Amino acid sequence: MGLEDSIARNLIHWVSGKGPEDDIVLSSRIRLARNLSKYSFPNKAGKEDKKKVRKAVAEAVLSQNTVKLHYINLADLPELEREVLIEKHLISPLLAQKGMEKGVFLDDNEKVSVMINEEDHIRIQILSPGFQLDENWKMADEFDDVLEKNLDYSFSEKWGYLTSCPTNVGTGLRASVMLHLPVLSLTNNIKKMLEAVSKLGLAVRGIYGEGSEVAGNIYQISNQVTLGHSEIDIIDNLESVTEKIIEQERKARESLLQEKSIELRDTISRSYGTLKYAYRISSEEALRLLSNVKLGSDLGLLKQVDRRVMSELMILIRPAHVQKIHGQELNTIERDIKRAELIQTRLKM
Amino acid sequence: MGLEDSIARNLIHWVSGKGPEDDIVLSSRIRLARNLSKYSFPNKAGKEDKKKVRKAVAEAVLSQNTVKLHYINLADLPELEREVLIEKHLISPLLAQKGMEKGVFLDDNEKVSVMINEEDHIRIQILSPGFQLDENWKMADEFDDVLEKNLDYSFSEKWGYLTSCPTNVGTGLRASVMLHLPVLSLTNNIKKMLEAVSKLGLAVRGIYGEGSEVAGNIYQISNQVTLGHSEIDIIDNLESVTEKIIEQERKARESLLQEKSIELRDTISRSYGTLKYAYRISSEEALRLLSNVKLGSDLGLLKQVDRRVMSELMILIRPAHVQKIHGQELNTIERDIKRAELIQTRLKM
Repeated sequence: MGLEDSIARNLIHWVSGKGPEDDIVLSSRIRLARNLSKYSFPNKAGKEDKKKVRKAVAEAVLSQNTVKLHYINLADLPELEREVLIEKHLISPLLAQKGMEKGVFLDDNEKVSVMINEEDHIRIQILSPGFQLDENWKMADEFDDVLEKNLDYSFSEKWGYLTSCPTNVGTGLRASVMLHLPVLSLTNNIKKMLEAVSKLGLAVRGIYGEGSEVAGNIYQISNQVTLGHSEIDIIDNLESVTEKIIEQERKARESLLQEKSIELRDTISRSYGTLKYAYRISSEEALRLLSNVKLGSDLGLLKQVDRRVMSELMILIRPAHVQKIHGQELNTIERDIKRAELIQTRLKM
Repeated sequence: MGLEDSIARNLIHWVSGKGPEDDIVLSSRIRLARNLSKYSFPNKAGKEDKKKVRKAVAEAVLSQNTVKLHYINLADLPELEREVLIEKHLISPLLAQKGMEKGVFLDDNEKVSVMINEEDHIRIQILSPGFQLDENWKMADEFDDVLEKNLDYSFSEKWGYLTSCPTNVGTGLRASVMLHLPVLSLTNNIKKMLEAVSKLGLAVRGIYGEGSEVAGNIYQISNQVTLGHSEIDIIDNLESVTEKIIEQERKARESLLQEKSIELRDTISRSYGTLKYAYRISSEEALRLLSNVKLGSDLGLLKQVDRRVMSELMILIRPAHVQKIHGQELNTIERDIKRAELIQTRLKM
């Protein structure tokens, strides 16, 4: 039962937990960028300054008691573990790159993450299952207020919070939702919808950020700019667009179920069979099949499947997770075999 | 449990039973063509003569006590039931066609079949699982002797048994084996082998006789001519060629397992997953997947699967069987759905 235990130790709360509208919204994320006024931004700061930033932030984090956080020093972490944190969306690829005085505070449920010396001195992230931007915003805002008591933020009355990259200046807020849109993707309505979304000042990306392809029919939608808008406006805008997308995806699912019931049942059921029996499987294929099976679960066509397990597997099957869970580095062929084993073990749990 | 019961009532003994070399040889068949001297061959005979033939043969069959047989009058049989008997290889397509005084005697295990007024007045068939041509020949020969006591066969000292078609004149014997050759097919060695087989006076056909395509990698090999050879020679020749083919297929399987182990395991395991989970499936795809899964079972890669169930399913999934087992006529789409259900139910039994 080694593998089962290892999987159990690596479950991903922010995607496997329940949340509002979680048939379509896998997760909601609020991220705040903050910098300390006394020090240059990390891309300009020297080792000493970065160290002071790290210490000041750590002190502020440890002296608050809204949430219990533990610190991970990125320099101490093997590459595989850093990759795992990226795949879990708990740190950014930038933070994982070699560099000085980088670290992250996490809570046990991995809902809260505070990155230090990333692009900005501080990045506060709140990540939850389902559609709950408001709750996340409230929590981020409160946490930010608590930190601010002990930290002197870089803030201009005219511009708002100052950040390393101009797109974050203002509120320093990035709000995003991760949406599973299999039927809008299938019926090619996605392009039209995404064009409309772009016009509303929102950005659309694949599951692993900018440039990542849209694997598993997962789309991340987030605000593009923060300057000139209040936090509430930004979140309201993202929420109302997301609600419309949810509505469209649901309608498209209903139509498909009525018009192509046999084909749909067949595709979904075969996808499940392949996940249960493949001897080896690539991440691309696994994502595609997990997407189908999750849809089947959402539509009540596969009663034996919990859709949240499918959402979670979309992360557990990524290369670093497969290696971490199996406890060793693996080449591509081995990974494909162990990925299949991981999926099959998780499905039985 | 209606479907399970219905499947249980339709199991096919001659393919699901155990037999020598049944990893490769699905079945062995001996067929003898005989005619009564007093009457014209069926293609020339009138209704009265055919009736007399039917009565004489029936009397001879019923007065023997080597094997207990029951009579089926083809004219009384709905088309679907006739199709089922063809799919089971118990009657020929010719016998199933509309015509007078046609019938067949069968035993409960469907090992023995005696067709009346087919191309010849009498066709005796012995059908067994695995490689047992000698045993079948012995049984056919004895049964033929018993019938001959009460029937006056059309026989010439010079030519041997006289038959409707010249290819059967002589012994009236057709011996055949049905072989599952997935790896020789996969590696394209099959063509070379089949050419060699043809040169040795043997014919190769697909699972459903002349002109049928080679579905499920099943090949029927039989003697072409009977004139000028003794029964023993004909059977010996077929046996020794079959032994060589078995050897080649086994060698090819070993090599494949060594050289392409991962691909092989993956293909086999996915085939099993698809059979277990498809919502609809065509006969062509089902045959292909059953062939893969049977190979997996033969090689010990799928311990949970009985290869004989796979061989049997190759017949149970044919259109008439699907309809008979489900107790109703079905269109193509319905059949594909019910075929998948049938396979999944059988796999659970």
